Amino acid sequence: MPTWRIWRGEYPIATLDPGDRGLAYGDGLFETILIHAGQPVWWDAHMARLRRGCNVLGMAMPDGDFLRTQCAALSAGCARGALKLIVTRGVGERGYVLPAEAPPTLVMGLSKAPQPPPREGLTLRWCDTRLSIQPRLAGIKHLNRLEQVLARAEWSDPAIHEGLLRDTAGRVVCATSANLFALRDGRWITPPVRDCGIEGVCRGWLLRNVPQAVERGLSVEEIETADAVILCNAVRGILPVAALGMRRWSPHVAAVEDLRNALAASEPAFASP
Amino acid sequence: MPTWRIWRGEYPIATLDPGDRGLAYGDGLFETILIHAGQPVWWDAHMARLRRGCNVLGMAMPDGDFLRTQCAALSAGCARGALKLIVTRGVGERGYVLPAEAPPTLVMGLSKAPQPPPREGLTLRWCDTRLSIQPRLAGIKHLNRLEQVLARAEWSDPAIHEGLLRDTAGRVVCATSANLFALRDGRWITPPVRDCGIEGVCRGWLLRNVPQAVERGLSVEEIETADAVILCNAVRGILPVAALGMRRWSPHVAAVEDLRNALAASEPAFASP
Repeated sequence: MPTWRIWRGEYPIATLDPGDRGLAYGDGLFETILIHAGQPVWWDAHMARLRRGCNVLGMAMPDGDFLRTQCAALSAGCARGALKLIVTRGVGERGYVLPAEAPPTLVMGLSKAPQPPPREGLTLRWCDTRLSIQPRLAGIKHLNRLEQVLARAEWSDPAIHEGLLRDTAGRVVCATSANLFALRDGRWITPPVRDCGIEGVCRGWLLRNVPQAVERGLSVEEIETADAVILCNAVRGILPVAALGMRRWSPHVAAVEDLRNALAASEPAFASP
Repeated sequence: MPTWRIWRGEYPIATLDPGDRGLAYGDGLFETILIHAGQPVWWDAHMARLRRGCNVLGMAMPDGDFLRTQCAALSAGCARGALKLIVTRGVGERGYVLPAEAPPTLVMGLSKAPQPPPREGLTLRWCDTRLSIQPRLAGIKHLNRLEQVLARAEWSDPAIHEGLLRDTAGRVVCATSANLFALRDGRWITPPVRDCGIEGVCRGWLLRNVPQAVERGLSVEEIETADAVILCNAVRGILPVAALGMRRWSPHVAAVEDLRNALAASEPAFASP
């Protein structure tokens, strides 16, 4: 269990109010940030996504210097970990109406870093749970995550590492806690996140830094006939995929290793141990 | 602010764990129950909906006798109030995977009852925010309520009491915190809640007890050309509607008063003061 710190606005508080709108309605946002050698990785990108989320929800963005200072204090001496930041709209009266003057609630906790990805590559499945189409909430990392919970609850076999999700229109979107790129005709294709899904920080890095990376819709068949597939997220980086249902891929083909090497060159936190 | 009580399973605890999945993912359910003369109104219907929600989310239903006893203790001496019950999947490790053995978190708080509805009837607006279509989560009262928060944030004019919501296919569903019935050709029609929306407790009472009440899809035009419109929920009962945009209705026509009288005869808590 991580050590948690909580603030009301910028004042430290000891405990969460059960009337917090984060609990009542999932009325808030979160970020999960890789800590490497005591430092957050991709801090600016996490803060940019948090700011976009605050804009969508009509919340004030917490002060970036305050968050950075608190992150540094919590992460000091941490060789590798995952810092979770939650920002909620604060405590409200009963009902959906926005509180007139509630300072946001901030929560930070530092967990152990996840295990490194298996050398032999990830094994995936298709999830039956579909993501609903809601352009107003797509892209941001809000606290309404029951679809992901239901999708992840579809399997308990530890040999299956992740599940791929489609939206209610049948288009491929992402994994339960990662974005997805499929290699086709020399291009690394990732689905748009305009209708559902999350604008992942590692996904954004790939789209900006890899000339072959593009955003375009993908069907189930296009995934299954791809030359290679990777998952990615901000804490685990690039995860080569070895299997999806009956389909097998060689997870460490040159195109995948090129991506991983490019990432490691830019962010040493993702260099292979 | 209400007085809150919290339990881990059936053990009272002093504070919420910031790692609770209710906060992290909205991974839980709630009920808002009218307390009248120290007693909960429609207790069995609230418990039935909570049980359906637990089944959908794959959570164990808390013991009903335990909940009833704690509700009675909190409500003793309360002439009229609104009891909020939250049930979450409990505290988990990082990630969506279900915790192996987490007791649920229970939260109860008693608030003042809301104001009685305005005698002149409610004034409504159409919301721009659409409800997404997600049959797996429709009907139950889960904690993922950002769509309702965004819809309620569309207006701040206190002269507007509620907003009506359509789904992403344009069908009328409900108000931000109430269900809806429209009177047409002598029938009280309420939209189905199979794709989105909540199976309201007062809605269920009306469907079971009013012979003219039926479930059927409703378009915007069918609402605007209805002979009368009411909203309903478990805390406020039946709320006559007087205005929606430019449309005006006489809120206390005989058909509406018949509904209200039938409800008051069955549940004295809803008798007019």
